[in-house]
Amino acid sequence: MSKKLRVTVWNEYRHEKKPGKVAEVYPKGIHEAIAEDLRAQSDMEVRTATLDEPEHGLSDAVLDATDVLVWWGHMAHKEVEDTIAAKVRDRVLNKGMGLVVLHSAHMSKPFLLLMGTSGALKWREDGLKEILWVTKPGHPIVKDINDHFVLEHEEMYGEHFDIPEPDELVLLSWFAGGEVFRSGCTWKRGAGSVFYFRPGHETFPTYYDKNVRSVIANGCRWAAPQGAPNVTYWKYESILGK
Amino acid sequence: MSKKLRVTVWNEYRHEKKPGKVAEVYPKGIHEAIAEDLRAQSDMEVRTATLDEPEHGLSDAVLDATDVLVWWGHMAHKEVEDTIAAKVRDRVLNKGMGLVVLHSAHMSKPFLLLMGTSGALKWREDGLKEILWVTKPGHPIVKDINDHFVLEHEEMYGEHFDIPEPDELVLLSWFAGGEVFRSGCTWKRGAGSVFYFRPGHETFPTYYDKNVRSVIANGCRWAAPQGAPNVTYWKYESILGK
Amino acid sequence: MSKKLRVTVWNEYRHEKKPGKVAEVYPKGIHEAIAEDLRAQSDMEVRTATLDEPEHGLSDAVLDATDVLVWWGHMAHKEVEDTIAAKVRDRVLNKGMGLVVLHSAHMSKPFLLLMGTSGALKWREDGLKEILWVTKPGHPIVKDINDHFVLEHEEMYGEHFDIPEPDELVLLSWFAGGEVFRSGCTWKRGAGSVFYFRPGHETFPTYYDKNVRSVIANGCRWAAPQGAPNVTYWKYESILGK
Amino acid sequence: MSKKLRVTVWNEYRHEKKPGKVAEVYPKGIHEAIAEDLRAQSDMEVRTATLDEPEHGLSDAVLDATDVLVWWGHMAHKEVEDTIAAKVRDRVLNKGMGLVVLHSAHMSKPFLLLMGTSGALKWREDGLKEILWVTKPGHPIVKDINDHFVLEHEEMYGEHFDIPEPDELVLLSWFAGGEVFRSGCTWKRGAGSVFYFRPGHETFPTYYDKNVRSVIANGCRWAAPQGAPNVTYWKYESILGK
Repeated sequence: MSKKLRVTVWNEYRHEKKPGKVAEVYPKGIHEAIAEDLRAQSDMEVRTATLDEPEHGLSDAVLDATDVLVWWGHMAHKEVEDTIAAKVRDRVLNKGMGLVVLHSAHMSKPFLLLMGTSGALKWREDGLKEILWVTKPGHPIVKDINDHFVLEHEEMYGEHFDIPEPDELVLLSWFAGGEVFRSGCTWKRGAGSVFYFRPGHETFPTYYDKNVRSVIANGCRWAAPQGAPNVTYWKYESILGK
Repeated sequence: MSKKLRVTVWNEYRHEKKPGKVAEVYPKGIHEAIAEDLRAQSDMEVRTATLDEPEHGLSDAVLDATDVLVWWGHMAHKEVEDTIAAKVRDRVLNKGMGLVVLHSAHMSKPFLLLMGTSGALKWREDGLKEILWVTKPGHPIVKDINDHFVLEHEEMYGEHFDIPEPDELVLLSWFAGGEVFRSGCTWKRGAGSVFYFRPGHETFPTYYDKNVRSVIANGCRWAAPQGAPNVTYWKYESILGK
Repeated sequence: MSKKLRVTVWNEYRHEKKPGKVAEVYPKGIHEAIAEDLRAQSDMEVRTATLDEPEHGLSDAVLDATDVLVWWGHMAHKEVEDTIAAKVRDRVLNKGMGLVVLHSAHMSKPFLLLMGTSGALKWREDGLKEILWVTKPGHPIVKDINDHFVLEHEEMYGEHFDIPEPDELVLLSWFAGGEVFRSGCTWKRGAGSVFYFRPGHETFPTYYDKNVRSVIANGCRWAAPQGAPNVTYWKYESILGK
Repeated sequence: MSKKLRVTVWNEYRHEKKPGKVAEVYPKGIHEAIAEDLRAQSDMEVRTATLDEPEHGLSDAVLDATDVLVWWGHMAHKEVEDTIAAKVRDRVLNKGMGLVVLHSAHMSKPFLLLMGTSGALKWREDGLKEILWVTKPGHPIVKDINDHFVLEHEEMYGEHFDIPEPDELVLLSWFAGGEVFRSGCTWKRGAGSVFYFRPGHETFPTYYDKNVRSVIANGCRWAAPQGAPNVTYWKYESILGK
């Protein structure tokens, strides 16, 4: 493909505006930490959008120019307008826009609309070790990973994670406190592709990690649209000649 | 299991109240045609509920006494209250209530909430032949079917059918006009089971067909809840002793 | 179902015949430890079979009287006759016989024939803690389990586990040494059902554990055949009237 | 990707050597008809191999230089050496070589080894119409297809087709005689990708059809290896520091 992949990184961008740990770790916002690495990819064109912009930064013009949308949200899921969330869902289903859902966005409106489940899970902010194991070697999302990688300090997420059975389970997490989690999951929905990737608590420098960055960049490439499909729906005449 | 399976057959029940073909075919309503056969099963206890009853006939008391909900709707999907549709979804996810979705209920609110897709498809009311082929011999839903069965007159539904890839594809339809359709599909969602079964246009006597009745009865048994799960969600202490 | 489920527990039965740890833990053989609990189930009829019996104890008469076959093997996989392994596979595909594959039987011939992958994994005999987490609450295989259970001493199995993506992932394991594993997996193959369940190293008393026993008994029930399918294959006349 | 995709088209090449219909339709062999179109793709490098060459044309050197193997076979499946079939399977599992399986190769050794099922189906050489419907719009394999395409004359293949539930069902066939078939199916096995595509009876000019050619070329691209995985198997030391 000679055309660049157009990625929009969306962030709630609330935690980082208040003084404290999050602002220290991500002074320009989580979206900028993610976008920084994606901008360094020669095959990508990157923009960002945040909750408090008009239309949450997701106007039709922006979405028209978005191949893959990366989503980070946490405390303000409910402030996302239903119409915007539905628009994101419809772009995935009908236009094949890719959606990369990060960490606490397991409770975001677009993700829950596309999954149909509650997204519930266990969590604990203990900052202990997480080890991510590859369950699908040879999958493009883990192209640059050996068979595991380690994050020294992360929030714990534990099973049961209430999602539909993933089409593909790519990564599993081990946590020092005794839990496990399906941390890299893919689903097709309509013409589009959805990738959920677990790591990324706001108080840890996870989005500067080399392996995490590889997985996100690979996930964007994997979720690239394959061209809007050309399907006729509803009332239909038989194609058999009479 | 000595306890009977408690099935509630829900019907929009609008077509049948107007004089015409539908009222002739289903004088007591589609729900009664379906319920009649289920009542004849020795392992089932059957009730019905319809749109125009208070709470659409789906009070908490009724849902508490429902193991599997069968759903038929067509022209009045939008009149189903969002709160009732959400309640049905939550019973499936959290309590493991089974949901058997029939024919035009591919556009019903509870089904779309659980799937996350548009449910769109092709259709044509030509009343020609449909042949249903078993793609999963040995599956409990097709226990009493050989490897296909025929409906002489049915409405056509054609692909693309916008659903998540089924966990199991049990039946495929052939239509005389040249189309095919995924007609028997299963999904797990949360603790519950969802079965979509295509046949059943209101102007044809489909719900009196022996094979259709077998599939619906088998589908109810397959979708039976396995007991409400005992899962802890949200904030969680490590179970590792210190 | 009034008829009892006919379960045959197959064991390599070599480790236990030599003096040492295994013989101490399983003096009558691993098969007897497993069968003991299944015999206590009111809905099951249980027999055992072992490698060194004629036809490995799996004559046609025995297989004809077997609804579900439980398989434990480890050091002598290669001594299983190819014809017997193929017979087991064919019974699963064509007759819907259930197959419950335990622990080191991930390398057994019948399992590999049905999967088509190498079955490779990581392992370490450290005897440390394993925690099994339910990823599919409401699934019949974990009917009597809360949302996890603990085995104080087990061998470690780690990802990547080279299996086809499971139809359903029911249990995930956490190991004290840092690994994770897909420990409860289901697949449909032909008319039959296959359940792989990880725990059960020969030097630990795993098959006396209450939760392990529940999962095995539930797994046998889940894998019960649904009646041999009635499918016509090969040359076929059109069913459309002329 | 600047590097070209290295495709090897394998053909049994027996039918075409005898005078008759097949030799008329495919005078240079089915492999050359397929290769002709793939050679016209700017991103591919194509070679062919046939049964009667030494090592069936699949020496280690050839396989080392093969990213994706396309396989057509029919009457001589049994003449393929077991060691060669096993080598193909192992390249798929361990090196991520893609495998595109065409028409009657549903009974070929490499395919059956990777699937674990019998591959059985119904068939009839009636030369009537086949219509292929897209069930996964937006999938790269159907990139250049609208929502269906027609083959005026083909052999019929009908369900039940004894395969593991496909990871993705991409195309469904309708046949004029009343049957349906899962005609475009994908599976991941180990590090590799397998695509089965139904059309292509030796007496019809199917492999000159524009849409069939698109699907095969797209299928090769979809099945491209993602780099040999770097996984440690077997005995494993804990990565947790002591």
